[in-house]
Order: sequence, then C-alpha cells, then structure tokens
Amino acid sequence: MRLADLETPALLLDAAKMRANIARMNATMRRHGVTLRPHLKTAKSVEVACAMVEGWPGGVTVSTLREADQFFAAGFRDILYAVGIAPNKLAHVAELTRRGATLSLILDSIAAAEAVAAFGRAEGLKLPVLIEIDSDRHRAGVAPDDAALLAAIAGRLADGAELRGVMTHGGGSYDAPGEERIAAHAELERSGTVRAAEALRSAGFPCPVVSVGSTPTATFARDLSGVAEVRVGVYVFQDLVMAGLGVCAVDDIAISVAATVIGHQAERGWLITDAGWMALSRDRGTQAQPVDQGYGLVSGTEDLIVISANQEHGIVADRHGRPLDLARFPIGTMLRILPNHACATAAQHDRYHVLDGDDAIAALWPRFGGWA
Amino acid sequence: MRLADLETPALLLDAAKMRANIARMNATMRRHGVTLRPHLKTAKSVEVACAMVEGWPGGVTVSTLREADQFFAAGFRDILYAVGIAPNKLAHVAELTRRGATLSLILDSIAAAEAVAAFGRAEGLKLPVLIEIDSDRHRAGVAPDDAALLAAIAGRLADGAELRGVMTHGGGSYDAPGEERIAAHAELERSGTVRAAEALRSAGFPCPVVSVGSTPTATFARDLSGVAEVRVGVYVFQDLVMAGLGVCAVDDIAISVAATVIGHQAERGWLITDAGWMALSRDRGTQAQPVDQGYGLVSGTEDLIVISANQEHGIVADRHGRPLDLARFPIGTMLRILPNHACATAAQHDRYHVLDGDDAIAALWPRFGGWA
Repeated sequence: MRLADLETPALLLDAAKMRANIARMNATMRRHGVTLRPHLKTAKSVEVACAMVEGWPGGVTVSTLREADQFFAAGFRDILYAVGIAPNKLAHVAELTRRGATLSLILDSIAAAEAVAAFGRAEGLKLPVLIEIDSDRHRAGVAPDDAALLAAIAGRLADGAELRGVMTHGGGSYDAPGEERIAAHAELERSGTVRAAEALRSAGFPCPVVSVGSTPTATFARDLSGVAEVRVGVYVFQDLVMAGLGVCAVDDIAISVAATVIGHQAERGWLITDAGWMALSRDRGTQAQPVDQGYGLVSGTEDLIVISANQEHGIVADRHGRPLDLARFPIGTMLRILPNHACATAAQHDRYHVLDGDDAIAALWPRFGGWA
Repeated sequence: MRLADLETPALLLDAAKMRANIARMNATMRRHGVTLRPHLKTAKSVEVACAMVEGWPGGVTVSTLREADQFFAAGFRDILYAVGIAPNKLAHVAELTRRGATLSLILDSIAAAEAVAAFGRAEGLKLPVLIEIDSDRHRAGVAPDDAALLAAIAGRLADGAELRGVMTHGGGSYDAPGEERIAAHAELERSGTVRAAEALRSAGFPCPVVSVGSTPTATFARDLSGVAEVRVGVYVFQDLVMAGLGVCAVDDIAISVAATVIGHQAERGWLITDAGWMALSRDRGTQAQPVDQGYGLVSGTEDLIVISANQEHGIVADRHGRPLDLARFPIGTMLRILPNHACATAAQHDRYHVLDGDDAIAALWPRFGGWA
C-alpha cells in the first residue's frame, strides 16, 4: 500500500527512526552499566515492545493492568506496574500472578502496604513490591530521607508481600529544559533512591532493586552509581516536547499523523485538515516551552503548525501569522503532523501504519488502550 | 456488579440522566417543528444512538467513516458525514453507498465539488452533497452571501452528484456564554443557511435541506424558520463546558470517570488518583470560562477539581488552594470525575459502565473510535 492511498487521519510509524532511537538509548544504558526496563505505556504494541526489549533480560514496565494482560499474553513475564496500586486492582493482579506473571507493584503509604499485605495473606500470595520515592517533589512517593516511614512500610510488607526495592520517576525533568538542568534532575533521582535504599538496608530490610527513570533524565544522567535499572518509554518515538527539552532532534521523531487538506480559509491564509484533536490529542505540552508547536508541527517545515483543533478538524497556519500560499496546498494534499506528546497522540489510534521509506506502508501494527 | 467493585479508571454512564437530556432536546425540537438528526460522534455507541434517534426518522450525523460503517452495520441507513470530504475517502464512501447506505457528504469549494462529481461520473454514482456554510466565521464553509461561489459549486455538482442543500455548524457559540449571546449565534446559523439556500434556489438549483446545529444554539434558538433539521450530539451527555455556557446544569451531566484515591500528598493536602489524562482526556475546555474546572470536577462537590494530570495520575485538590482533610479520603476511596468535554473524555474509553441507581452497574455498552 502507498502512503498516498491511505485514508486519513492515520498514525504513521517510521520504523528506521524508531530503531535508531532504541539503539541510542541502549548504548547510553550500556555505557552506564545498568539494565533497561522499557516502559511500554507509550507504544502499547507488541511489535514495538519486542524491538525495545531486545538485548535486555530485565523485564518491562507498564502503566495499566490492560498492558500487563496484553504483554503477558505476548510472552512477557517480568512486569512492573508503575502506578500506585489501588485495592480494587488486587484481584486482577492475583489472577495474572497465578497464571505465571511476576507482576511487581508500587506503593508509598502504610495504608497501601497494609492492604497489599492483608490481601497477600488472605490469598496465599507474596506479591513483589517496590516503594515509590518522591525524588523531586513532583507527584507521589515517600520523601527519600523519611527513614521512619520507609521502615514502617517495609515492616508492614514483611508478612504478606515481598519488598523488592525502591523506585522513582523524575517527572519534574519535563519542566527543566536543557542538559544541565535535566542532569541535575537525574542526580536527584539517583541520589534519592540510593539514600532510601540505604535507609532500608540499615533498618535490616533487603532492597536489591533501585529503579529510576524518565526519558530526559536517562538521556542526560552523568552518574548512575547504585542504580540497578532504568525505566523509559517516550524515547522509542520521541516527540516535540522532548525536542523542546533538548533531548532529541525534531528529525528523530518516529511517529506522525497523516492528515489531508480538506479546505482553505482564503481570507486568513489557513489550511483546514481532517486531523483534529481526536487524531492529534488535546496535548499542548509545548505551550510552556520556548517554541510553542500548537497541536503539532507539519513535518518537513519549520513554521507550519496546527494552530487550533476541533474534534475532526485541524487548522494549519504559519506560526508567525503570515498567510500561506494556498495554491501550494490544494485540496487533497497530505501533510504529516509531528506530535507534541507521543504517548497522548498514539493513544488516539488503534494501529500503526509502519512506513518503509517515504512512500510505502510495509505493515499494520495493532495497538490497544483501556484499563481493566 | 457493584460500582464499588469496579476496577478504575472506568467510564460511567447514568442512563436516567441521559434519557432526561434526550427528552429535553426532543421537546425543544418538537416545539420548533424541526427534525432532529442526532450527531453520534459524542457517543459512538449503538445503544446510545438508538436512544437518541427514537421518534426521529431523519437519519443521523457522523464525524468519521468508521462511525458510518458501525452505525450502518447496526441498521442506520441515512447518514450525514459532517466533515469536509477528502478525495482519499471517496472509495470508502462508494463502498458504503453500494451496500445500501444513503451517505451524504459536505464540501465548501469548487475543487472538492469537482473531485466528487468526477468520482461520481467515473463510478456511476450520484452522491448526495450539502454545501457547508460559514455562518459565524468559525472554521470552514462558504460565506452565506457569496451567491456566485454557491452557484459555481452547485453547477460543478450538477453532473455527477446530487445537491441536497446547505448546512452549517455554529461552533462559535462555544465562545459565547449565556442565553442571549448563544441565541444570537443560533440566528446567525439560521439566517446564514436560509440566505444561502435562497441564493441557490434563485439560481435554479434545488435546495431541500437546510441543516444547522450545535448543542448550545439548538438549546437557545428562538426561531428556526426555514430550517429543516438540527444536528446535535453533546446534549446526550452534557459536560462542564456546556454547564459553563449555561446550556445545562452540572447535575445534568450523564457521564463521569470513576477514579480511586491511590495516595496523598500530605504536605499540600492533595489526593492522588488513578485517573490521569489518559482517562479524563487532555481537554481543558473550561480554562477560558469564568469557572476553570481543571481536568474535571469531583461529582457531588463544588470545589474539588483535578488540578493536574499525568498519564495515569490525577491530582485532586481544592480549587481555592485550601488543604483537604485527607482522613476523609482514605486510600481506596472512589471518586467520580465529571468531564470538561464529553466527546473527548468518552473517546478515551472503550465501554460505558451503565449505572442503575447509585451503586449498581446494569450493563456494559461498547464504544469505538478510529477512522478508516
């Protein structure tokens, strides 16, 4: 199938760029001597996941139990569910565990530890657990130096669960553009989790796993001493937010949305396309960055962006307000829109159209969403 | 199944509120003596669509050909595809037409009219077409008084397609809160399409259909003389944007996202839940309204909103910054988050959990997304 024959909007995946992104992150992790545990929440695709785990025996990370179900069905066994566990999900966790998954959970409170341990005792299961650490005051987790709370959680887990270690997600790095500031966030991740692990070990608890990660911090970390594994996901596709942070080049972005010009606003010099927010997502992650990319940048251009979006309409215009020469973009013209946020844009689609070169679609890779 | 046993996040539908919303809009349309052609883009569910069309013989409206496929398969025959047609979709349109659908298209340019007519001549099909009118300079369409362009488009359609009439979508009403301003937008819709229809008739072209609509304008229109049909979709569920415009009450909103408290930020008095933007959508449609609802309002409260959202985490806090009494919301507490924008939030889910009363789930209704 030719790209030109595709019904739009449609999600495109440049597999060569994806492989280059994977190779770059793999090399960085090997240089640090740590294990990569790829986060599959960005891709939600078995084919992409297989490319990400190649050479890494350390399991995978997921953000939903639906991902755990799907990747377990595809043969993945060692799965970290990296969202604080809620009691209503424990029956699902037990079911996957009994079928053979090693599904690790995370939590950051005595209440959650007690719930998991009580469930484990009742069900005769010792579920593996990591304690979440708040390394950058970003969202969730135990403060790295709250040794008393760490020991209290570990104590509650001792009878009914299996404490495996500590983990953090340096999400604050998304607001800290540039290599220097991101490297500082990476050190917050590393030092916070290592201190928390030492506190647990000093209190007599085992803590074999120290797990950190975000695509920005993994890219620019200078030292990962004491870290066992790194979790990253967005790197596989990259996106305009990552480019705005300096983590990748715009040309590294491996996914885009094919859109067709369906009309012109002649007075204003705008194009109307059939890719609205349903196809692009409502993500405006570049809004607070130095270069606001609207709802996405037209691939191959510097200044054509989606300035506004309705459900199934996108308005493409020059970012500086100069009217476009509409004759260059007749009705039927196909554009490729690069995403602000790969996770959000990909989530609006149920398949990847895998490009072979610039003009041929070599494969369709299904992707899934949902939770339970 | 009890609501309390549900794995979260999950999309809930209060069917009694939905039926009341449908009844209210039906009564408004009957009072005006016009036909309702429900827009199914909000619901994307056969069960919801059946409730919306009850009593209306005038067909339905869709925003994607996937919707046309799905609703045709469910027995709907008269379908208006209300996004400007792109040439790459004509083969799909022809296929549905040959299988028995009456699939009407919209367009607003000579180029698109020529493409549709040429396709029709080549395939031996006379596809029904409405000309899109730009009644409020909102997005797409021919200016209502551009009689020359209207006649030129109609002329191009004469040999190879079937001109059915004119249509508009008064999307500008979303930026015009309050009954008075919305009623003025409704009159722009009505008068613009009626003038365009008269121009076409004066030029010798048939124009039986005059089609208008948006949930705000349909709710507050004072006069629909000359209008044949009204297209509306959001009314079926309503949402916080509609409530902010004064179109409905918060208590009319029929869908919500069930979320569970998975942690506390004790220092800040925040709740962390398992409903992030993947479950709520990134829509921030209330941001520019007098009351900004963040990523959604906790049902049953006036001041608890989702102040920020990551992929699978939502931060719930008091809108005025007062720390919450966290003991009232222990880990495991279920909250229901009302959506900013029903179309966007529902699109993040693959099923509706239909509530029977406050505590029982009576049914699961599947919903779909996608395009081709």
